[in-house]
Amino acid sequence: MAKKPQTLKGFRDFLPDEMRVRNLVLDTIRSVFESFGFEPLETPSLEYAETLLGKYGEEADRLVYTFDDRGGRKVGLIYDLTVPVSRVLATYGKKIPLPFKRYQIQRVWRAEKPQKGRFREFVQCDFDIFGVDSSLADAEIIAVIYQVLKKLGFDDPDYRQAGFKIRLNSRPLLFYILEESGITEKNQQLEVLRTIDKLGKLPRQKLIEELKKKRLAYSSSDRLLNKIQAIRPNEEVTKILGYLQAMGLEEKYYCFDPTLVRGLDYYTGPIFEAEIEGFKGSVAGGGRYDNLIEQLGGPSTPATGASLGLDRLCELVKEKNLASNELKPTTQVLVTIFDESLVDESLKLSFILRSMKENAEIYLDPKAKLDKQIKYADRKGIPYVLILGPEEAKNDTVTVKDLRSGKQTTASRDQVVENIKCQITNTK
Amino acid sequence: MAKKPQTLKGFRDFLPDEMRVRNLVLDTIRSVFESFGFEPLETPSLEYAETLLGKYGEEADRLVYTFDDRGGRKVGLIYDLTVPVSRVLATYGKKIPLPFKRYQIQRVWRAEKPQKGRFREFVQCDFDIFGVDSSLADAEIIAVIYQVLKKLGFDDPDYRQAGFKIRLNSRPLLFYILEESGITEKNQQLEVLRTIDKLGKLPRQKLIEELKKKRLAYSSSDRLLNKIQAIRPNEEVTKILGYLQAMGLEEKYYCFDPTLVRGLDYYTGPIFEAEIEGFKGSVAGGGRYDNLIEQLGGPSTPATGASLGLDRLCELVKEKNLASNELKPTTQVLVTIFDESLVDESLKLSFILRSMKENAEIYLDPKAKLDKQIKYADRKGIPYVLILGPEEAKNDTVTVKDLRSGKQTTASRDQVVENIKCQITNTK
Repeated sequence: MAKKPQTLKGFRDFLPDEMRVRNLVLDTIRSVFESFGFEPLETPSLEYAETLLGKYGEEADRLVYTFDDRGGRKVGLIYDLTVPVSRVLATYGKKIPLPFKRYQIQRVWRAEKPQKGRFREFVQCDFDIFGVDSSLADAEIIAVIYQVLKKLGFDDPDYRQAGFKIRLNSRPLLFYILEESGITEKNQQLEVLRTIDKLGKLPRQKLIEELKKKRLAYSSSDRLLNKIQAIRPNEEVTKILGYLQAMGLEEKYYCFDPTLVRGLDYYTGPIFEAEIEGFKGSVAGGGRYDNLIEQLGGPSTPATGASLGLDRLCELVKEKNLASNELKPTTQVLVTIFDESLVDESLKLSFILRSMKENAEIYLDPKAKLDKQIKYADRKGIPYVLILGPEEAKNDTVTVKDLRSGKQTTASRDQVVENIKCQITNTK
Repeated sequence: MAKKPQTLKGFRDFLPDEMRVRNLVLDTIRSVFESFGFEPLETPSLEYAETLLGKYGEEADRLVYTFDDRGGRKVGLIYDLTVPVSRVLATYGKKIPLPFKRYQIQRVWRAEKPQKGRFREFVQCDFDIFGVDSSLADAEIIAVIYQVLKKLGFDDPDYRQAGFKIRLNSRPLLFYILEESGITEKNQQLEVLRTIDKLGKLPRQKLIEELKKKRLAYSSSDRLLNKIQAIRPNEEVTKILGYLQAMGLEEKYYCFDPTLVRGLDYYTGPIFEAEIEGFKGSVAGGGRYDNLIEQLGGPSTPATGASLGLDRLCELVKEKNLASNELKPTTQVLVTIFDESLVDESLKLSFILRSMKENAEIYLDPKAKLDKQIKYADRKGIPYVLILGPEEAKNDTVTVKDLRSGKQTTASRDQVVENIKCQITNTK
């Protein structure tokens, strides 16, 4: 065996402990998506390079992994899931009738400089509604984010405060204020928006200095910031807020925030972003993008949707110790093997447990000492160890060792199976 | 919009109907893996080319997608999941204590000639036990395959015959017979095994002709074939068969088959393969490969495992119309919107249904005619359509239309919610 083999920078192994968190979060996300009628879609990881390039500008193009395949075709690894779904809408046309509500959970690749929290391969969780221009669709996207965060346990259990907050704003509203303030040039608008995004986070003086660099005089800057902060929800936002209330979303978990900007330039309507209180950065974000699908090569289609940040959600689930109950090892029971002559007895017991829908592992080496088998259970975090020695075989009993308390009891097999089943169900 | 964009040959879109089958099969597979204590693992899709190349010979190397990344590193898309897990075992060493039972479900890529049933991107479902040389581990691999096929519904419900068969053989046993017959040269051995694989499928005369080309005289061929067919299970196979019986596996679903060979050269012990009766080709296969992990760059580790054929399993689940009950659309209820003034009423109803853990979709365009909304439900296969007009709003009732029978009834909201919940649960 030569030197230790490495993974590429920006790429990750997910060992079992990490995978358990990821699967839990993904299963939750999927179940919420489906509870609202979103349908699953998957597309190839490789597409023709021309499908992927020239969609989000030169900077993004530089991040796409492209290469010539064995047949000399220019191909690329997908950069996001929006270009692929646009391609799908273009490829299948009427075969996918609108409204189309799809979710898509797949790996994407970006040749970014690896840095903390930035990876070259990561999973995107997108869900979008195509073909509906009603604000009701935008409200539903927000409701899905709300349900995911609730179901993952980010809502404050003490009800003193919200554990997360979904902020809502409107791009047309922001542009309206800019135009009204005499900022009409597209580039300057986007520059100024980037500063507005920091309102409430940085000192006001700092923002005014920043705006000065963006060709805005002190007095106009001051007036602009005042105006932004005083914005009242427009009709669109008011409608969405009303829908959220009717849907039964608790008000402390969402709010209108006129300083919310979001980075991407393609949003055309409401925008939204969710964060976990006390933590920097967002865990979900999205908005309406009625022109993008056509720009990306699809048919002209109104669209709204959002993306959930899987990596950050997993980090926070661990950090806040949520779902610790569900993050137990896959099995709660190890059936040990006393010796070769008693293998069959142990096999039968593990079969009975599994047929009662209880995950049960059996130690697979009949020659291993009992000590070693118990250590294995301990390492895997399996709490119950069952022992079936000659005495137990003769009396049709089994000995249970609870590795957390160290307590050991012997009882009839039926009773033990029943007891274990009960105890595991109760602690779930 | 330019010409219709295409996917690359050998790559596939999975639209919702297809995805539902795939998710059902994958969820089943995952739950069986976990019921035996296998733990999830995922690794990067891209690895250093040197990690991937030179492992399975030149032919395989030609199928690996390799390229230079933006930093000039030679990289490649993974070709299988065995090389990555060998890399993981080498990278983490003692941090992954043995025995290690892992499952890994990921996309892999092979630049093969696209042909029916062969894809350049497909999902592999591998599960393996590392660090155990006992036959008990081999028996467990077979038991997992058995449970997956049973849980997917491939067992014959009428109990007249088996719906699937897992065949078991031993590589050392085959080599022993060859040596005994004077076939000692490695290459000739492998050539002859390829013919033996067809025993029982092709006429005997044909096989003898084939063996003639492989430098075997008529009389020795005849004797060899007789010998093979008369092989009795060796100690290893006998042990496994005994374990399977103790584990409670019904005997009609597995058998010793001395003509089973399997393609890959790296097997060192028992080999197994599962097929669905009446269908060509296998749906699962594997065996013991005690030398491979070290050959692939990992530490010397005994290993046994198998791979499930996801694509073929999905095809067969559809073809045999299994699990048709679980393959319903994600929602069973569409709440329609009568008009803009009644949106909130409909939103509330959909919220109530969801809070009772019933997936419920609401039509997202308040301006759409009721007709259009019902068509949408019909297209999506949603059986229950709820209508909340002014009359219903006034009386706190709701009208339910069952799209399958066309029957329409009006009742109190509580009662309707309760009824729907009951009916859906009963047909599940």
